[in-house]
Amino acid sequence: MNEATGASSPKSVPVSGSQLADVVAQQLEAMLSAGNYDAVKVLLQPVQPVDIAEAIGNIPLVLQGLAFRLLSKNEAIEVYENLDPAVQQSLLDRLRSSEVLELVEEMSPDDRVRLFDELPAKVVRRLLAELSPAERRVTAQLLGYEQETAGRLMTTEFIDLKEFHSAAQALTIVRRRATETETIYSLYVTDRERHLTGILSLRDLVTADPEDLIGHVMTRDVVNVSTDTDQEEVARAIQRYDFLAVPVVDREQRLVGIVTVDDVIDVIEQEATRDLYAAGAVQAGDEDDYFQSNLFTVARRRVVWLAALVVANGFTTQVIAMNGFVLNQVVLLAAFIPLLIGTGGNVGAQSSTVVIRGLSTQRIQALGPMKAVVREAIAGALLGLLMLVVVVPFAWWKGEGPLVGAAVGISLMAITTLAATAGAALPLLFDKMGLDPALMSAPFITTATDVAGVLIYLRTAAWLLNHTNVAPS
Amino acid sequence: MNEATGASSPKSVPVSGSQLADVVAQQLEAMLSAGNYDAVKVLLQPVQPVDIAEAIGNIPLVLQGLAFRLLSKNEAIEVYENLDPAVQQSLLDRLRSSEVLELVEEMSPDDRVRLFDELPAKVVRRLLAELSPAERRVTAQLLGYEQETAGRLMTTEFIDLKEFHSAAQALTIVRRRATETETIYSLYVTDRERHLTGILSLRDLVTADPEDLIGHVMTRDVVNVSTDTDQEEVARAIQRYDFLAVPVVDREQRLVGIVTVDDVIDVIEQEATRDLYAAGAVQAGDEDDYFQSNLFTVARRRVVWLAALVVANGFTTQVIAMNGFVLNQVVLLAAFIPLLIGTGGNVGAQSSTVVIRGLSTQRIQALGPMKAVVREAIAGALLGLLMLVVVVPFAWWKGEGPLVGAAVGISLMAITTLAATAGAALPLLFDKMGLDPALMSAPFITTATDVAGVLIYLRTAAWLLNHTNVAPS
Repeated sequence: MNEATGASSPKSVPVSGSQLADVVAQQLEAMLSAGNYDAVKVLLQPVQPVDIAEAIGNIPLVLQGLAFRLLSKNEAIEVYENLDPAVQQSLLDRLRSSEVLELVEEMSPDDRVRLFDELPAKVVRRLLAELSPAERRVTAQLLGYEQETAGRLMTTEFIDLKEFHSAAQALTIVRRRATETETIYSLYVTDRERHLTGILSLRDLVTADPEDLIGHVMTRDVVNVSTDTDQEEVARAIQRYDFLAVPVVDREQRLVGIVTVDDVIDVIEQEATRDLYAAGAVQAGDEDDYFQSNLFTVARRRVVWLAALVVANGFTTQVIAMNGFVLNQVVLLAAFIPLLIGTGGNVGAQSSTVVIRGLSTQRIQALGPMKAVVREAIAGALLGLLMLVVVVPFAWWKGEGPLVGAAVGISLMAITTLAATAGAALPLLFDKMGLDPALMSAPFITTATDVAGVLIYLRTAAWLLNHTNVAPS
Repeated sequence: MNEATGASSPKSVPVSGSQLADVVAQQLEAMLSAGNYDAVKVLLQPVQPVDIAEAIGNIPLVLQGLAFRLLSKNEAIEVYENLDPAVQQSLLDRLRSSEVLELVEEMSPDDRVRLFDELPAKVVRRLLAELSPAERRVTAQLLGYEQETAGRLMTTEFIDLKEFHSAAQALTIVRRRATETETIYSLYVTDRERHLTGILSLRDLVTADPEDLIGHVMTRDVVNVSTDTDQEEVARAIQRYDFLAVPVVDREQRLVGIVTVDDVIDVIEQEATRDLYAAGAVQAGDEDDYFQSNLFTVARRRVVWLAALVVANGFTTQVIAMNGFVLNQVVLLAAFIPLLIGTGGNVGAQSSTVVIRGLSTQRIQALGPMKAVVREAIAGALLGLLMLVVVVPFAWWKGEGPLVGAAVGISLMAITTLAATAGAALPLLFDKMGLDPALMSAPFITTATDVAGVLIYLRTAAWLLNHTNVAPS
């Protein structure tokens, strides 16, 4: 974490860091090309590491290594941790292997693991072999946890105290370890077997009497997560309790690491992107590289979903073709198919959106799934009723008689109710079955209600044609 | 903030706080009904304030005031800040006015303002009049800023130091003010006119030599935001720089407050919910109360979007009705309308999803809007081409001859290219015009491409009928 010791250009600073990084990149490129390295140091001195990282990513490859070498050692590590994975890799190829090793050795264990995830296995094995035994051990341990769990997200750098320490002793320990640990604001207390027995904040420590024992100052009841807890749950815990960090324990309740709030913000954003992509029928992938990936990768990622939806649409075609005789009699019925299935799709999308979001923010659990489905079904019927007022007169007029109006009206009610019910029930069913509810998002609900909607509409029209005399003259 | 001094049931704690809150609510209700108040105190002692708040929200109204009075004063304030706005209001009616005043007086200014936003203006005026002059002043000041700006989100409780303080003096100040300020980890340095001149972290302070002057320890280059900065930009700044808090200055660069990371997480989630709701044609409202609001409110929130979409769908109806003569000749053409507009809609939804998300995570700015549109247009054409392979043979076969196959193929290519272009361009256009790009999300793109798609399809078919002899026999 960074702890707000922000550095950036003085006076009113543009909040949008990207713009700042653009300007820095231009100046950086000019200075490097002119060989004016002292000017580079002056330029970068007040700029935040994340902005330097973005600027370095934006200059030509040949200059990146040069720019990187001009950074001070501490700054270089922070900048490197903030670089794009692609730039991280290309830099590794450009630096001398002693420089590479020093860099990788000094990185935070969690950032190092994220880098190793991107590198070829061969390179990882070589780097691992060259790390110091202590760093190698932690790295191998973190790499052993599954992706997207607390074990992968956590850092192993935290401050642990003992219950028999006095507050004054503890403060000395904190001071000594302040430069090497990711946070000094959440402090952990462990027993001889490294079991987590309590936690305290630096605030508790500085306000405590120096003679007080940690065992008395600390809080014994601790919210913690396990190494295999899903990263989304970790994020929810930190968000719910407004924590700065949450401790991670192994199966024997031994403290093995902590997850800090800054990593959790990225998880929350990543999960939101996934839900949104699912809602737009885009395959969830690594969002970071979307705008950099080539068009064939883009097309490949999307065509799977599209193809599935086209097959589903094929059933709609089938239904219409089989009921062609109805359209043959009253061709104007066809004019209302897009309106009916469009409305059904939109109503279904609304219900599935609300339910899927409710599941991820854990608000729907309080209501109960059955109640949620019933609520949505009634809402769907209500919406259908409201639509009728506008749509039926329009259909009567356009359809040149009561047949189209009646068929549109009856099927509209049925379609909106059905769409809302399916929109709410299908994501809940998927969730119950342990699948990602976001897969049952708008595009699938829409396509499913299309088939049902067309069937209801044309069968209603056929029935009206056979049993009444509302057919247009 | 809470700083991880988490309290909760000992040993392996369920991460999902809601389940814990449910169990607590049941026990709480039983104990209160039995009049066993000592048991309540024992029960709640290890439970986190946010879980107590949820539990109180889940017990009958008559017991809520009773449960609340059993909390210690400090705990009561924290619990109250975490209650649902509806429960906060009903409690205000149930407590004695001296209790209410004490509670409101002790709340953090930012939480108090959020409560006042929900209360009737009359109640707010009365409460404001009864607050102490200092608290009244801050509250009125915060209420004066626009909703969803840094001014509304910030707290006015922070620790400000002077450059001439020594590190030891500063630490004494921090200790003295530790209990009353929201965070003690980000410290701010101001001059005589309260201009922000530097910042430092508590980490910097505890590692500094006690004799060092703050003016030497602090960082002069500070990332800050203004009182009128949009909350989303504030969130981006904290996320980008991994800050725990960001200082807020007024027009004269005077430090007036800070925004902390815990509030920013809620903003990020709220903004993600808005984007998702827009993608599902649900009007963005206060997500918190969605599952509690009644069905008529729900229907009212959705019917506006639906009605707009139905009107747009009316144009599709119009286009089909006007081209009825084509369908009269080959009724099977109608069977492919849902497939074509469905595919167009899905392709458009994919492009708009990617662009809207790219705008909110600020990744698309790096690529440039024109390039993004061209990329999406090419991706759309590519996807259309891939679909052709499956769809054209199917249409040829179902449509009993080359006419339907040719019409479907030609219009499919045109529709996917158009849909992807519109899907990318319209949100970017909205963004350029200062409107929310999320309004141009899937439902609108889909409906817009419906009209164009049907027009292209039926005109293509009409042209083929007139100029070739591919009509089915």
